[in-house]
Amino acid sequence: MDFRHSDRSLALQEQVRTFLDEHVYPAEHTFEGQAAAYRAAGTPFRTPEVLAGLKVEARSQGLWNLFLPDAEHGAGLSVLEYAPIAELSGRSAHIAPEAMNCNAPDTGNMELLHMFATPEQREQWLDPLLAGEIRSCFSMTEPDVASSDATNIAATIIEDGDHYVVHGRKWWSTGAMRPECRIAIVMGVSDPDNARHARQSMILVPLDAPGVTIERSTTVFGYDDGSHGGHGVIDFDHVRVPKENLLGPRGGGFMMAQARLGPGRIHHCMRSLGMAERALELMCERAVARTAFGRPLSDQGVVREWIAESRIRLEQARLLTMKTAWLIDTVGVRGAATEIAAIKVVAPREALWVLDKAIQVHGAAGVSGDFPLAEMWAGLRTLRLADGPDEVHLRSIAREQLKPYLPPRS
Amino acid sequence: MDFRHSDRSLALQEQVRTFLDEHVYPAEHTFEGQAAAYRAAGTPFRTPEVLAGLKVEARSQGLWNLFLPDAEHGAGLSVLEYAPIAELSGRSAHIAPEAMNCNAPDTGNMELLHMFATPEQREQWLDPLLAGEIRSCFSMTEPDVASSDATNIAATIIEDGDHYVVHGRKWWSTGAMRPECRIAIVMGVSDPDNARHARQSMILVPLDAPGVTIERSTTVFGYDDGSHGGHGVIDFDHVRVPKENLLGPRGGGFMMAQARLGPGRIHHCMRSLGMAERALELMCERAVARTAFGRPLSDQGVVREWIAESRIRLEQARLLTMKTAWLIDTVGVRGAATEIAAIKVVAPREALWVLDKAIQVHGAAGVSGDFPLAEMWAGLRTLRLADGPDEVHLRSIAREQLKPYLPPRS
Amino acid sequence: MDFRHSDRSLALQEQVRTFLDEHVYPAEHTFEGQAAAYRAAGTPFRTPEVLAGLKVEARSQGLWNLFLPDAEHGAGLSVLEYAPIAELSGRSAHIAPEAMNCNAPDTGNMELLHMFATPEQREQWLDPLLAGEIRSCFSMTEPDVASSDATNIAATIIEDGDHYVVHGRKWWSTGAMRPECRIAIVMGVSDPDNARHARQSMILVPLDAPGVTIERSTTVFGYDDGSHGGHGVIDFDHVRVPKENLLGPRGGGFMMAQARLGPGRIHHCMRSLGMAERALELMCERAVARTAFGRPLSDQGVVREWIAESRIRLEQARLLTMKTAWLIDTVGVRGAATEIAAIKVVAPREALWVLDKAIQVHGAAGVSGDFPLAEMWAGLRTLRLADGPDEVHLRSIAREQLKPYLPPRS
Amino acid sequence: MDFRHSDRSLALQEQVRTFLDEHVYPAEHTFEGQAAAYRAAGTPFRTPEVLAGLKVEARSQGLWNLFLPDAEHGAGLSVLEYAPIAELSGRSAHIAPEAMNCNAPDTGNMELLHMFATPEQREQWLDPLLAGEIRSCFSMTEPDVASSDATNIAATIIEDGDHYVVHGRKWWSTGAMRPECRIAIVMGVSDPDNARHARQSMILVPLDAPGVTIERSTTVFGYDDGSHGGHGVIDFDHVRVPKENLLGPRGGGFMMAQARLGPGRIHHCMRSLGMAERALELMCERAVARTAFGRPLSDQGVVREWIAESRIRLEQARLLTMKTAWLIDTVGVRGAATEIAAIKVVAPREALWVLDKAIQVHGAAGVSGDFPLAEMWAGLRTLRLADGPDEVHLRSIAREQLKPYLPPRS
Repeated sequence: MDFRHSDRSLALQEQVRTFLDEHVYPAEHTFEGQAAAYRAAGTPFRTPEVLAGLKVEARSQGLWNLFLPDAEHGAGLSVLEYAPIAELSGRSAHIAPEAMNCNAPDTGNMELLHMFATPEQREQWLDPLLAGEIRSCFSMTEPDVASSDATNIAATIIEDGDHYVVHGRKWWSTGAMRPECRIAIVMGVSDPDNARHARQSMILVPLDAPGVTIERSTTVFGYDDGSHGGHGVIDFDHVRVPKENLLGPRGGGFMMAQARLGPGRIHHCMRSLGMAERALELMCERAVARTAFGRPLSDQGVVREWIAESRIRLEQARLLTMKTAWLIDTVGVRGAATEIAAIKVVAPREALWVLDKAIQVHGAAGVSGDFPLAEMWAGLRTLRLADGPDEVHLRSIAREQLKPYLPPRS
Repeated sequence: MDFRHSDRSLALQEQVRTFLDEHVYPAEHTFEGQAAAYRAAGTPFRTPEVLAGLKVEARSQGLWNLFLPDAEHGAGLSVLEYAPIAELSGRSAHIAPEAMNCNAPDTGNMELLHMFATPEQREQWLDPLLAGEIRSCFSMTEPDVASSDATNIAATIIEDGDHYVVHGRKWWSTGAMRPECRIAIVMGVSDPDNARHARQSMILVPLDAPGVTIERSTTVFGYDDGSHGGHGVIDFDHVRVPKENLLGPRGGGFMMAQARLGPGRIHHCMRSLGMAERALELMCERAVARTAFGRPLSDQGVVREWIAESRIRLEQARLLTMKTAWLIDTVGVRGAATEIAAIKVVAPREALWVLDKAIQVHGAAGVSGDFPLAEMWAGLRTLRLADGPDEVHLRSIAREQLKPYLPPRS
Repeated sequence: MDFRHSDRSLALQEQVRTFLDEHVYPAEHTFEGQAAAYRAAGTPFRTPEVLAGLKVEARSQGLWNLFLPDAEHGAGLSVLEYAPIAELSGRSAHIAPEAMNCNAPDTGNMELLHMFATPEQREQWLDPLLAGEIRSCFSMTEPDVASSDATNIAATIIEDGDHYVVHGRKWWSTGAMRPECRIAIVMGVSDPDNARHARQSMILVPLDAPGVTIERSTTVFGYDDGSHGGHGVIDFDHVRVPKENLLGPRGGGFMMAQARLGPGRIHHCMRSLGMAERALELMCERAVARTAFGRPLSDQGVVREWIAESRIRLEQARLLTMKTAWLIDTVGVRGAATEIAAIKVVAPREALWVLDKAIQVHGAAGVSGDFPLAEMWAGLRTLRLADGPDEVHLRSIAREQLKPYLPPRS
Repeated sequence: MDFRHSDRSLALQEQVRTFLDEHVYPAEHTFEGQAAAYRAAGTPFRTPEVLAGLKVEARSQGLWNLFLPDAEHGAGLSVLEYAPIAELSGRSAHIAPEAMNCNAPDTGNMELLHMFATPEQREQWLDPLLAGEIRSCFSMTEPDVASSDATNIAATIIEDGDHYVVHGRKWWSTGAMRPECRIAIVMGVSDPDNARHARQSMILVPLDAPGVTIERSTTVFGYDDGSHGGHGVIDFDHVRVPKENLLGPRGGGFMMAQARLGPGRIHHCMRSLGMAERALELMCERAVARTAFGRPLSDQGVVREWIAESRIRLEQARLLTMKTAWLIDTVGVRGAATEIAAIKVVAPREALWVLDKAIQVHGAAGVSGDFPLAEMWAGLRTLRLADGPDEVHLRSIAREQLKPYLPPRS
């Protein structure tokens, strides 16, 4: 066992840290100002302009597509090596991930395309995504069913001559509202008579295809999440796409969704920890700066205990996430199933704990827009539901734990 | 001991329940639609029109100013009798309290005026408030100091001939953004050389007085809280008001703020429980309606445990709040100090617990604007900070508990 | 609503408080010393001698059988009136309940006999129990099945001519080890073909009947609970008792067990709160007396928060228990089912919370026998399992809550 | 980063696992039986005889003194390599550690002697300890002061000619009651005028020295912990020992205590996790074996959630402990201070969480002596106080976290 990062990873972390210090943090104020101005102008889903320059800078430094474990298009980093980069990007979650072309859901979509796309599909969609020229969304969850159970999914993908007809209503298609978003990866039932987990397929649906209506964006608490493209509610009304648009094997949707989740979970979790680390810094800063009842908040035992607990909880969540990354690298997503489920529960939960305390230390300012805490909290709270609520993941872990004790099913 | 409500209280509860069923719930959709339209039109702080009719209806039914423990202007209810009315109003917290002219912060302000205003002050401000014609705000908290320690307050009220000059910057002046808001009760230091708790006074400052600038509204987890007038950041820049505007005794600000808090806490806490009761209903409805992994969520043991715990927690919080109300009625705010502090911690905390589980049962829908849960959560989370964070109240309770064990101070 | 105790109840509480101060607390040291001496002598289940005098004193003061809601044999107190007496007795739980002939499981057994016994059964068993001359045990739980589901019970009560033959193995028959214990109320299946909840009966089995073997006593976190008679593991091996020994209606065992539980839960819960109140006092005393890092523990914010939380939690648990008592008095055990389940979860849980913190404030002394905290903790922890684990009670509450939302069963 | 154990460590773990399976688990029943018999015979502190053979077996297999990071006397394992061995030994905590001569407090004492003893001291005390022929105790904590603050320690070590006079009263000298215990390492104030942390020294006091009285053993919950020598309360009444008995540098007591704690914490924490892992196994076994309300407990969602949470919590606590071990190996005890404090809080806390749930799944059997759960719980609860309560460690962590935010002390 060795808890030291590789030299390469340490160097890269240092480089990203410098990029954050020199370019990202200084741009935060401008970014939020531009987002507010777009909102006031009735165009909340425009991407703040300041981002363009940051993308150029990041790309010029080689801080581009680092998430992709492919030496040709990405940096060839292992999941374990990329994890601390994801954490650092989470410290400025509105800007840094996208500046480095490492933002969700595009990362997951690019991974899917990288693994499963045909050369034509790659050229048309993956290349501009890797170049950061267009954006994409992932349309799986549906408003009408408990989508935590993927077999509930009701949208259909029906063969009709040279085409597939995609029909259904999706929501939480994050990023779909932004003008740059061109393509949706849609999950639906193509083979209803197959075995339970072989019924779904994934298909590429251009957002300008006839029959696609982006109805509206759902809010998250009171946030429209405009600067990263909102969360689209999309109606796919008998949308016809050529057969060539099928992504990966027919009936392979469920399996591909699982594959997509592994590294994506690491990214989400590490970014969550990055947010929480930043919140902890804000908590410490505020605690030493504010005085009540004759002494700084940082002298209050209760506040001290929160700070200590925060350190402990983040360290534990990070270690578990890093180990999970290592498992994905060494034994694969399947072999890491229990841990992938575990971090999905742990990282947002612990990050939320830290955020809650940071808010409390800030007083009413903490719930306001004057500090980033409330918005970070809202995003993290959503992660307890995205990709299935905590309870579904705990259920999977328990099933695995109980296996040795149960009689084999005949 | 007798846990039964009085006949009068039961009858009134029944009447309010009917008012909610017949008038308030059916108006919710319209209310939110109007609020959204105003927001889209750039006037988020307008009061949705539908409210006007509801006020007429409530008043015609005698459901008006029930909060005021005065038989002439209110209904002459004890705090204990009013408490369950407050809870019911919390079930539709955007509409019902204001429809019945029982909404914060006007209730607290009306109480202060009722107790301390001169006849002229009453005529000018209290009467139109009781009539629901104007609205008011309370300007105590300041952005630059930890206002949980009221002795930190820095705004000044300085005598100058026939006037007082009010100077300072306040925030979280809830309701200040609405057009109908005319008057602020401002707390400031008038007598800096007095004993620590006799330095502040309260003064009436019309919002159209020269020197008053309402800078902006702070958000709460992304919500502008527009339909009830936002939360104003107000700059009072050497505002001159006649000496007659002083409210109550000079140097009595701290004491008056304390007096204001007692019944107001009951209202806040009961409304919180009303919100949580509604959330629990939504949780049960959703749990029976959604199916995952082959059975309704309501058959999942974990969901069942949440529902049971919710019932227990709300019942306990309600009993403590009711007892506190009874104590205020029988031994006064001072005698109920420990309990008033306790419910401030308990009611929002337990209500938040229920809301969190209700959200979880709703999946991603729970954090969106499609259900009222996320917004209720945000409001309740804010209550853990309003009037001082939990920790300040726990501190007070502990001091009281430890008194018998400590040597008397000489 | 009225949160004031009746004058009669207040007077009685005052009398019990004086009895504790003058007689019980001063006897605690002697009691524990005698118990230790008996243990060392290999007779751990002897009742410490000092108790005899306390019983005489209590009886002479009329503090005797107060639990029994019958004016002739008890004091004719309502459940609500007795509840605070039970709490006070919990403050010295080894001594006070038994000194006042109000100790479990005899109270529950006396209630059963009072409600269901024939005149002959009353004369033989109830009268000496009410006189405090003999003791009894209740044999329901079985080591071989999950007894939280009462329908799992496997012991049998089979008719055979003029006799019933009782057969089965029971444990947690509290009090069975003491020499004064003469009689067990045994629950078993008499009518296996009846409906699920009409299969069990209760029967009186003298402990000296042939076939009864008290095998051993189970410990509770290392404690033998010797001074109140341990927890017997009893083998009933084809024990023949006359038909007249059947208690109450045949097939009525389940119903009688439920009826027994209502008031008994109030007693248990209130005694738990009494223990916790005493622990809170010890916590405060220790906190002001011990100094670490330059100041008394009572100056540490974290300790203060524990003390405040303890006060809040105990107050809430007490109110819920009192309301439940009131419900039992006014609408009966059935009408109070949800609340009876709720306090079973709440009272031990909150009391344990307080105990845990009290232990922590005492440092290593807290887990030792030098303070009563560890033993109180162990007893309270057991209450989370006695009469069914928390989870079973939460399950019942949830079922009740969900009823209005579920389709009626056809 | 690499989460794989070294081959050597894996091989050793396998060997220990086999030793447990073949020798230790099968001896558990006998061990507890012998302990019970000694207790009944009034000699509770005798070491059960079966242990002798296990020691011979372990030593013959080379499973002896593995804790000692010294290739000559121990196995030359790093702290990181030994950690999983400690965890495995915790699975049978009464037997395995001592069978392998790796039990506390002897391990810590042997480490101190190994680091600081003179050749004469080594020959007299370390060699027989390493041979498992004698046992030792560590006398630091005092009943009269809050020993969590080591500067409170009041015992004195006063120079008098060729001797030191040791005077004071100690408790929680674990192991002191056993007949084989010969030597105490006593901490006391030798230089009261030195700087705060340079006042204490350690000195070797043979338990048969005149003036040493072992007064009694304190219990832990209801356990005497007899089979591993109880917890002695020792009076050192002006005990004269030769100057040569001073251990390490005079005034170095505090520093030596700190040094002792680092690896010792790893051992304690890993053993705790070993206990919890065994409890989790018992929980799973019971959950599948017991049926209530028509299905096995393992089908109850709540029980499943406990099992999943247990797995997550133990995994997180283990990773943090392993990282801490690695830090001790690579940057030393000082550099690992925050983590050493963190695991002290985390490992017992999480292990207790698991134990609590395991008990709950076992029903009343869980609190009894029929399963090892209650006793494991009691031991783990004590760990939250041993070497300082959680709160002291959280305090240290917070101080470290806040350092960068505070102005430098001038």
